[in-house]
Amino acid sequence: MTSPTGRPAALPLAHADLSALLHAIARQPRCTRAYLTRLTGLSRGTVATRIEELIAAGLVVEEAGASKGGRPPGELRLNGAAGVILGADLGSSHCRVSASDLAGVPLASASYDLRIADGPAAVLGGLDEAFQGLLSSAGKRPSEVRAIGIGVPGPVEHRTGTVVRPPIMPGWDGFAIPEFFADRYGVPTLVDNDANLAALGEYWARKEDSEHILYVKISTGIGCGIVSGGALHRGAQGAAGDIGHIRVPGGEDLLCSCGNMGCLEAVAGGDALARRLRAQGVAEARTSRDVTRLAAEGNPFARRAVREASESIGRVLATLVSFYNPNAIVVGGPFAELNEELLAGIRSAIYHRALPLATRSLRVESSSRAETVGVRGAEVLALQQALSPEGLQQLLTARVGS
Amino acid sequence: MTSPTGRPAALPLAHADLSALLHAIARQPRCTRAYLTRLTGLSRGTVATRIEELIAAGLVVEEAGASKGGRPPGELRLNGAAGVILGADLGSSHCRVSASDLAGVPLASASYDLRIADGPAAVLGGLDEAFQGLLSSAGKRPSEVRAIGIGVPGPVEHRTGTVVRPPIMPGWDGFAIPEFFADRYGVPTLVDNDANLAALGEYWARKEDSEHILYVKISTGIGCGIVSGGALHRGAQGAAGDIGHIRVPGGEDLLCSCGNMGCLEAVAGGDALARRLRAQGVAEARTSRDVTRLAAEGNPFARRAVREASESIGRVLATLVSFYNPNAIVVGGPFAELNEELLAGIRSAIYHRALPLATRSLRVESSSRAETVGVRGAEVLALQQALSPEGLQQLLTARVGS
Repeated sequence: MTSPTGRPAALPLAHADLSALLHAIARQPRCTRAYLTRLTGLSRGTVATRIEELIAAGLVVEEAGASKGGRPPGELRLNGAAGVILGADLGSSHCRVSASDLAGVPLASASYDLRIADGPAAVLGGLDEAFQGLLSSAGKRPSEVRAIGIGVPGPVEHRTGTVVRPPIMPGWDGFAIPEFFADRYGVPTLVDNDANLAALGEYWARKEDSEHILYVKISTGIGCGIVSGGALHRGAQGAAGDIGHIRVPGGEDLLCSCGNMGCLEAVAGGDALARRLRAQGVAEARTSRDVTRLAAEGNPFARRAVREASESIGRVLATLVSFYNPNAIVVGGPFAELNEELLAGIRSAIYHRALPLATRSLRVESSSRAETVGVRGAEVLALQQALSPEGLQQLLTARVGS
Repeated sequence: MTSPTGRPAALPLAHADLSALLHAIARQPRCTRAYLTRLTGLSRGTVATRIEELIAAGLVVEEAGASKGGRPPGELRLNGAAGVILGADLGSSHCRVSASDLAGVPLASASYDLRIADGPAAVLGGLDEAFQGLLSSAGKRPSEVRAIGIGVPGPVEHRTGTVVRPPIMPGWDGFAIPEFFADRYGVPTLVDNDANLAALGEYWARKEDSEHILYVKISTGIGCGIVSGGALHRGAQGAAGDIGHIRVPGGEDLLCSCGNMGCLEAVAGGDALARRLRAQGVAEARTSRDVTRLAAEGNPFARRAVREASESIGRVLATLVSFYNPNAIVVGGPFAELNEELLAGIRSAIYHRALPLATRSLRVESSSRAETVGVRGAEVLALQQALSPEGLQQLLTARVGS
């Protein structure tokens, strides 16, 4: 393998170094060699050599930065022309897709309705068409795709991308999604659940000092995506973040869909709130979206229910703050639209109960990019794979071949 | 720099690769090139080249493995002769120190009494003497030390090794421990709190598939060390694992040392139990060790108190299992000696409350190496630093120089 300059790129010898540098460049706007030296602990000379190799291989480009007197430091970014990343966020009734270049610049995006219950063949066939549409409108070829990330509304065995006993995805149990796309693109396809990908998307959109993020999705059920030190924490069986079935006080007589009594979801999930409102005579409360709408319209029963739910959720989050000490908790899902109502209750419980040190600079906020954070997280998952030591081999081969 | 074979070692160009390989070799008994290829995703050729470089640099040695017919695969380990790691576990009244070679083989260990309240000058002076004694009895020179790890019974700002407002370490607030040793050895000194180091020691003693560990220390206070994916999770302010101040049901009228009502520590910590026993007429219950001894002797009030405490702790841990999905929870501290009593209550609460998937292969056990796991964790922290891309530079320089 030779680089465009003709000299041997010698890249396979140092993939872990290169991978670390590429990740840092991808995450840091206006990235300089001095920053990379500080961040990685590599010597200045090593960083300089490696960056030259990455530029020669066409994966990194350099621009003159703003001068503060003297020679301006070169600003580094990934070379957008080096490939395309595809992302998808599959919901129960809706899908959002997007294509970005390797530098993270959006090329095209779309969204469309679907029924996840139609099963993998129909849904993934439709998704593939949507991907083709994005590529076509961005003027890119399928051979330029470097990795694909897909979020689904159910549990996933991440290593194989297999959907595992999903409550709201009939027909998907045991289906390995990456195999569907393997023949079509021949690139890595990464699959994860929607809360994990939203957590990753929120992490990526934040600054360097936000390494520990909890994304709490409040909908029919309640789940949580966990980022630790910039990477998803999935746990021993991939079950981490399943906070909907934590026991909470005051729910002792409430039966949860899991068969236990008093789970957070049975007290504060969307279905539970809708059921409680109907019992109070609010017949139109059928789903969590109805509850959201009623509360937004000022229905006092709905507002009261949301307020009580937010306190229960906040009490659980206070425990998790003491244990995990995150930089930020981001609340998403349909209830997150009730910004003030919901966050007030959650914040109140957390600040009342967690230790001052852990809440000193804790941010508790609703997702400012609720619609797109999932698909962005899917792209980030795919990009991280493409820039990993393993993925880098394929990236370099493809780069030389294309 | 040239290797013992005379050819340029060329090591500085690929520290991250080398660091990843050294970590894997350190952690995996009977490590083979095939294993490293699978683990790192590097190509077979790259692994072979890198291993030759590490052998040439004197950091790795190879032995013939057991033959299964055909040529036996070479088994790799770190070269013990390449350096010494020092570890210390400072308690409030006791210290344990140990020296190991780079391959993890123990060279010497000792323990002695101290009073942490005597302050940094006296305590660290004594510790330095203890280190000198270890080196002398192991026949090693101070110049062979590559890194030092130290555990303390209080909060630490890990980045600088500074003790921060420690409740039981008067005179230590704001003291930066690494500076004390910088002149004496000129090597990195890493400092962390005792629960974190015990978690790291437990992680290191376990097999490759135990990447997520909680170490729960139950003593006067209650704290937790967290390992995520093989690395300590310290959180945004280094406050992660502070589970003693999580609110628990049934403690509403109990004042905690932190000033709040109903913290886990106020319900189930050693001081709380001793106070409760005294209120029940058991005048000899003054400390958590008294409670442990009384319960072990069969005092029914003490046994009842320990049983109730274990259920409160178990309820909190059930929440953390649902959130974090660890491979194992290890219980340490003086109460851990009450193996059966304590673990029965904790296990019962966890299995009753956490989801089946998260408890399917969860191990809940007392530390089988309670006395030494802290100092072992201190050595692991120091070793990880020595093998990091940053530390590796120093290791190679020292190796060539020694």
